[in-house]
Amino acid sequence: MRVGWIGTGVMGAPMAGHLLSRGMDVVVTTRTRARAQSLLDAGAIWAKTPAEAADGADAVVSIVGFPEEVEEVHLGPGGTFSASRTPPIVIDCTTSDPTLAERIAAEAVDRGARSLDAPVSGGDVGARAGTLSVMVGGDREAFDRARPIFEAFGDVVVHQGPPGAGQRTKAVNQILVASATISTCEAMVFAVKSGLDPETVLSSVSRGAASSWTLTNLAPRMLDRDFDPGFKIEHFVKDLGIAVAEANRLEIPLPSLHLAQRLYEGALEAGHGDRGTHGILLALEAEVGL
Amino acid sequence: MRVGWIGTGVMGAPMAGHLLSRGMDVVVTTRTRARAQSLLDAGAIWAKTPAEAADGADAVVSIVGFPEEVEEVHLGPGGTFSASRTPPIVIDCTTSDPTLAERIAAEAVDRGARSLDAPVSGGDVGARAGTLSVMVGGDREAFDRARPIFEAFGDVVVHQGPPGAGQRTKAVNQILVASATISTCEAMVFAVKSGLDPETVLSSVSRGAASSWTLTNLAPRMLDRDFDPGFKIEHFVKDLGIAVAEANRLEIPLPSLHLAQRLYEGALEAGHGDRGTHGILLALEAEVGL
Repeated sequence: MRVGWIGTGVMGAPMAGHLLSRGMDVVVTTRTRARAQSLLDAGAIWAKTPAEAADGADAVVSIVGFPEEVEEVHLGPGGTFSASRTPPIVIDCTTSDPTLAERIAAEAVDRGARSLDAPVSGGDVGARAGTLSVMVGGDREAFDRARPIFEAFGDVVVHQGPPGAGQRTKAVNQILVASATISTCEAMVFAVKSGLDPETVLSSVSRGAASSWTLTNLAPRMLDRDFDPGFKIEHFVKDLGIAVAEANRLEIPLPSLHLAQRLYEGALEAGHGDRGTHGILLALEAEVGL
Repeated sequence: MRVGWIGTGVMGAPMAGHLLSRGMDVVVTTRTRARAQSLLDAGAIWAKTPAEAADGADAVVSIVGFPEEVEEVHLGPGGTFSASRTPPIVIDCTTSDPTLAERIAAEAVDRGARSLDAPVSGGDVGARAGTLSVMVGGDREAFDRARPIFEAFGDVVVHQGPPGAGQRTKAVNQILVASATISTCEAMVFAVKSGLDPETVLSSVSRGAASSWTLTNLAPRMLDRDFDPGFKIEHFVKDLGIAVAEANRLEIPLPSLHLAQRLYEGALEAGHGDRGTHGILLALEAEVGL
């Protein structure tokens, strides 16, 4: 199987590496060739443009930063849809706009191809371990054919529905994550300000009804004052914007989602964009004078 | 060991039952004698008042509904502090006001006794299984002496600090639980309104970074439209009021806690007080016209 691959960031590079490990041919492109070097060393072939990566491939996969880039690498000049032969399956793993996913799906059909929106969850750790959750929208038959690609880097691979359904499922995921992160910060601030020892508090609340992935994994990093990104605030603000836009389109007022967006946009404006999502603690602490 | 026990609700009855199972002598009282019947059948002795239950006991434990009742059963007429001999250890397991816990602790010291605030988490299921998390504030030596009582119904028993520290830790727990419940409802509403199958969505998001006790345990009940209480909204509104009062006292603005309080008070006013906390879904659905 020959797979074109676009994007070699903290997620894309290890994900493409899993395809190589499974013996697939990978033709890779990204803005800065140096960032693809580890994949090239492992046997990937370099392409100068998305179109070149897509040309003649059985499938092409993109995982880039923002919806505008998704649009550019597929629909723009030099994009996959300008390849001399559009691959039969076009996959986007970026967390992106569901309506853009629908538009790409329509464009794919026009070219006799199928597209799948397939955002992932599980972070850099999951990408390296090949244990991502892959949420897929698009044609069911195309999903079945693309399954070996998804299973190379994911251990929970679920077809969620028509084009856009993968992105909408990822929005659900981010609604949950945002709220959990903010309440974990509030809990830590409350603990400190009320004179408790936050580590001892964690030993009581980390099991039982208050337990969550966020509490287990991010609260200890908060206590260590380690705000390095697993996942950056600037990308999370993008994700929350997508979820809010979709909620507005559906005319559903989701108060905790709106609160999360407001707080994270504030953290971005305060210069915390490069921190991990749990860096929202710094914004909250500033507000309460800690 | 002889233990006076006040309160035989959905939590208190099984908790006291564990003391009996461990061979402790239990002297029980509650407003409605019939609700103590299973304990009396299992060997507990009936007392007409908290004072009578406390008299001559090594320790007395209360677990009632609201702070006003806590105040009444300890400090009121016929309360434990009016016993002819105050027990050396006075424990309150109700989720109650930390400043009240401090006041009871001072009154206990005046009588040569010690009090412990020891709210629990883990719900009716944890109470029956004896696997509660017990968060304890108060004198360390009294905590050590009371440990056999706590270990009879808890498997995570942690001394959190001076009087009130147990209640403050429970407030942290409820801040986390409130936010998780609301965001789980928002996630389910978003899924349904955007045309996804919520059960399939759960299969993608229940693992990884969005996972939580609430998502695993309450989302399926929401999908089954089963709003029977594990824990009732009317009691949760009380808990959130305690947390907000404490946050206000500490002058820490906690936006997601305030949002949770507003939504849950709305659900109470809409007549959902007897539903489980996940019944907040009904309020949210009403708001979005589902």
